[in-house]
Amino acid sequence: MAFDAIETPFGKIDKIVGGSGTYVAYAASHFVQPVQQISIIGNDFPKEEMEEMKKRGIQLDGVELVPDKKSFFWSGRYHEDMNKRDTLITDLNVLADFDPSIPDSYQGAEFLMLGNLAPKIQLNVIQELKKRPKLIVMDTMNFWMESAMAELKIVLKYVDMLMVNDAEARQLTGQFSLVKAAKSIMEMGPRYLIIKKGEHGALLFHGDNVFFAPALPLEEVFDPTGAGDTFAGGFMGHLAHTGDISFENMKRAIIIGSAMASFCVEKFGPTKLKEITKDEIENRLQQFKDLVSFDIQLI
Amino acid sequence: MAFDAIETPFGKIDKIVGGSGTYVAYAASHFVQPVQQISIIGNDFPKEEMEEMKKRGIQLDGVELVPDKKSFFWSGRYHEDMNKRDTLITDLNVLADFDPSIPDSYQGAEFLMLGNLAPKIQLNVIQELKKRPKLIVMDTMNFWMESAMAELKIVLKYVDMLMVNDAEARQLTGQFSLVKAAKSIMEMGPRYLIIKKGEHGALLFHGDNVFFAPALPLEEVFDPTGAGDTFAGGFMGHLAHTGDISFENMKRAIIIGSAMASFCVEKFGPTKLKEITKDEIENRLQQFKDLVSFDIQLI
Repeated sequence: MAFDAIETPFGKIDKIVGGSGTYVAYAASHFVQPVQQISIIGNDFPKEEMEEMKKRGIQLDGVELVPDKKSFFWSGRYHEDMNKRDTLITDLNVLADFDPSIPDSYQGAEFLMLGNLAPKIQLNVIQELKKRPKLIVMDTMNFWMESAMAELKIVLKYVDMLMVNDAEARQLTGQFSLVKAAKSIMEMGPRYLIIKKGEHGALLFHGDNVFFAPALPLEEVFDPTGAGDTFAGGFMGHLAHTGDISFENMKRAIIIGSAMASFCVEKFGPTKLKEITKDEIENRLQQFKDLVSFDIQLI
Repeated sequence: MAFDAIETPFGKIDKIVGGSGTYVAYAASHFVQPVQQISIIGNDFPKEEMEEMKKRGIQLDGVELVPDKKSFFWSGRYHEDMNKRDTLITDLNVLADFDPSIPDSYQGAEFLMLGNLAPKIQLNVIQELKKRPKLIVMDTMNFWMESAMAELKIVLKYVDMLMVNDAEARQLTGQFSLVKAAKSIMEMGPRYLIIKKGEHGALLFHGDNVFFAPALPLEEVFDPTGAGDTFAGGFMGHLAHTGDISFENMKRAIIIGSAMASFCVEKFGPTKLKEITKDEIENRLQQFKDLVSFDIQLI
């Protein structure tokens, strides 16, 4: 839970609420409640945002407030090709000393989403849980591959699923072919793998099974910040809602994640995630169905 | 119909039969016969290749043989990212004076595929046909946008569908968003548009309808040469076989084109296209179906 400053070809905003956990929680809360948030914030994090979260069934008992520090701050600029961005500022602030402790009320959680953070912290969270969740999903990024690869590889042994983008899958394995990279990652620990390809959709791997979820072709991607986290939130929200971690249900979950991500990019930050209705989500899921449905008459 | 020299990260071949027309014809001949070829070759084009084509129902009456010249020759090198390639040599040879004439036996053709070539020549072919085909599809490339944009824009007014890749769609319109580029291209003439995205699949646009065909995630793309032409051949072959140009049937055709392209890249040149069986095609179509099929339970 943090602040971002964002510049895209379409506009600029100096300060807006952001952070992986914020996007994951808002997206997931459309499908399952409560969402039990673990994070750290400074004295500048808006009270109204926290009230909004609580109203949406997002529990904040696991969010540590540090009274004399500021929240994490990231500033970035996107290019016309929104898959590319420059990081301008990273102020760790409260994140520098984050050592999450899990409230008793969170124990017994069946679905754990580890947002992008230092592998050591991700591992701490896993180890603090008394009962192993039914599904542990982990996000990470190139930064940790460069600075903490050994720790990252340890965490991989504890998780069921890794979610990374295509460049990260290649960096993690040294394999250019995503199919080869997927095999290699699934030998590192996770039985499931999602490779996110931004505007080119996402691939779900499990053993020899592969499923492809398209991205919705959009006229305009206003701000891609948080799209990957929103995808993760929608994915986990659906799985937690149904309690079903079959491959068939993961296919649905990845489409739902993609639909939520397609909303996220329409406005700055998580704004749109707070506006969408159940009807809008259902309509968008239908659009995804129409986009790839075909009835092949074999020759 | 030409010769290529190809270098990929996986191997190198000094001379192999190639050319848009070769790939289109071999791919289409799996679905419809006869295929009536229009091209020009030199004295070096192998007799055995022409016999192979005839055996597959590819008529060569419209292929001009220039006895004292050589066939078109292209040489290129692919990078690890197979979407990028360097052209090393382009010897026009017979193509320099190509002025196609349509045999009487070809008149009345219902489906016309204009492979990538000078727009002026593409227009000549359209104008030499006494009866307008049911569907005219045109391929082109960045080279013609840079050297013959005015002529290209004239041809666009005569065709039903344009097939280009994403970079070409952007170059043709100056729009980065593919959805905006698609709208803009459909205002230039074609009622249908296919944007090919290589390993990221292909988009079919028509009015407000959009359909997305995935590419099969492959362990190895051995040689991408001709994949786009093979796609076009499979697409047109299915449409011509069924005679049905509804949007629903175009969806099937684009999946069939994608399946044929996934075979093409497995070996150098058009080699694989001459080996595949009906059973292999059916199995691959089933793989495409499995890759994107999901059954969404709305919330």
